[in-house]
Amino acid sequence: MNQTPHNVRMNPQAKNPNHRIAITAGDPLGIGPEVALKALAELAQSHPALAARCTVVGPADWLTREAKRLALPLPEIQGLDLPANSLPNLAAMPRTSCAIGGEIAYQQIVQAVRGVQAGRYAAVVTAPISKEALHLAGHIYPGHTELLAELAGGVPVRMMLMNDELRTVLVTVHLPLRQALDAITPELVLQTIQITHAAGLGPRIAVAGINPHAGENGLLGDDEARLLQPAINAARAKGLNVSDPIAPDTVFMRARGFKEFDVVIAMYHDQGLIPVKYLGLDAGVNVTLGLPFVRTSPDHGTAFDIAGRLDEQGRSLANPLSMLSALHQAATLLG
Amino acid sequence: MNQTPHNVRMNPQAKNPNHRIAITAGDPLGIGPEVALKALAELAQSHPALAARCTVVGPADWLTREAKRLALPLPEIQGLDLPANSLPNLAAMPRTSCAIGGEIAYQQIVQAVRGVQAGRYAAVVTAPISKEALHLAGHIYPGHTELLAELAGGVPVRMMLMNDELRTVLVTVHLPLRQALDAITPELVLQTIQITHAAGLGPRIAVAGINPHAGENGLLGDDEARLLQPAINAARAKGLNVSDPIAPDTVFMRARGFKEFDVVIAMYHDQGLIPVKYLGLDAGVNVTLGLPFVRTSPDHGTAFDIAGRLDEQGRSLANPLSMLSALHQAATLLG
Repeated sequence: MNQTPHNVRMNPQAKNPNHRIAITAGDPLGIGPEVALKALAELAQSHPALAARCTVVGPADWLTREAKRLALPLPEIQGLDLPANSLPNLAAMPRTSCAIGGEIAYQQIVQAVRGVQAGRYAAVVTAPISKEALHLAGHIYPGHTELLAELAGGVPVRMMLMNDELRTVLVTVHLPLRQALDAITPELVLQTIQITHAAGLGPRIAVAGINPHAGENGLLGDDEARLLQPAINAARAKGLNVSDPIAPDTVFMRARGFKEFDVVIAMYHDQGLIPVKYLGLDAGVNVTLGLPFVRTSPDHGTAFDIAGRLDEQGRSLANPLSMLSALHQAATLLG
Repeated sequence: MNQTPHNVRMNPQAKNPNHRIAITAGDPLGIGPEVALKALAELAQSHPALAARCTVVGPADWLTREAKRLALPLPEIQGLDLPANSLPNLAAMPRTSCAIGGEIAYQQIVQAVRGVQAGRYAAVVTAPISKEALHLAGHIYPGHTELLAELAGGVPVRMMLMNDELRTVLVTVHLPLRQALDAITPELVLQTIQITHAAGLGPRIAVAGINPHAGENGLLGDDEARLLQPAINAARAKGLNVSDPIAPDTVFMRARGFKEFDVVIAMYHDQGLIPVKYLGLDAGVNVTLGLPFVRTSPDHGTAFDIAGRLDEQGRSLANPLSMLSALHQAATLLG
């Protein structure tokens, strides 16, 4: 892009159920276009008002061709702002990571964020991309989240997993467990609490402990006293409604169905993801907090191995349920 | 006791739905007697055949008095084999940890195991005891499990958590998380798998990874390759049906309802307890594997603060649901 989008205007707490949702189609050679089209076809039947708020950001010709091939209705599309004849014939390309796919995926994300900055969208729902393809195209980011954070002006972000009954925000994400434990600091925990609060996920914020029984007053570890309590105290000093460290094996149960808490701060990947995924993968949606817009994504990859393939009835093999959940949860977060 | 019960005769795999169940009443000053009596009263209505298989092991006078006070039916009782006038007036004692309570709790456990050795019981369901009271009485064990393991001849044991849809066996239990990670060895994992298999919990045994995505082929840690795969290979060489290390955030979902696996080997306390407890505390039952008899227990403590107290309708405040689950799961494990 030519400009750094440091002046993003959306306020995530200014909720409006009419706000529009951009769906980036993801790697065009993966299952992203299929799940976007299939999810919107389903949504047009079950939730037409929500479907009418959605725009797919992606290569218009390719999306049109895919909709025709799969006999699916064509949703509103925002085509890519690319030189006219720069797009190759995607239909002739193998379904795998390549620079073309990575570049298209990248441009979709850039244009969706520009659309947010222009006031057109309040949420971005991202179909899966290939990190390898992104890198082949020269865009060196670990993934979607880091790219979005940079496009939004370099803001600190956190990953939230949510379904209809549980929301959990991760202090650490993709680190070996030992390294994750070493990475937890009071500052990181406090920042996670603040991002969670600023995203409007509270007010009742639970903090999971690190050790069994949240350390049992030091008998089973002092990490809670050393690392968590200072962050909790600092957050309380700012007026936030934050729990003491709670035994990890009960905090998610207590937050289930938003009974005692609205959101749980989880210390490491599996602590948060085990309960969110336990009731079924399709229900788990990945949310990025800290961005000046709502961002959700389905919880699966590009699935190149089944992309473009049809079953005996001529239907796409790709399962749109996680994309549907991502769309529903984006609408939920928009209020 | 005078003799070491090295010659325990029960075979946990010789299942028999008529086998009898001993319920130790736990610390007599805690809620153990109440939850035992209340659970059996409920069971006599809902599952009379199961109720008829149960014997409460505890001080007969005290249990009789409690049943009368709470207007509950008196179940079959095995009184304690103590000197005639050695029991104080428990009704006059404060509801807290003391040597008398610890000694009674201890004697119940000894007599229940003797009952197993004499062929009277096939399962022991243990109401909660106070570790402090046990120590005040001079019986220095970290808890029930270690005492039972010693009474059974010093066998290696493992803690299993189970409910109606998930069973998970812990490699490490009450250690700070960092220490738990340091304690995991291929030998400990293999022994856990073998104890699980020998208890008849298989055949489909899943092994949870340690790191996010089970290490993602080394990108997120090498613990799976170093510590888990050797144990898995060794177990397979013995003919056991054991999975490769599976991503912790999906293995419990895949084992839920016994869909893909019958039991999950969990590496640390919260990895296994978060999913078991997620759907509700009362449904979670603690099982000790490795003993030559079935042992289950409710998942709560002595609750001295509410023990003996009545609500406005004159009913005991103690909730018997977890004890009921422990009785049902003992029956399930007996086959």
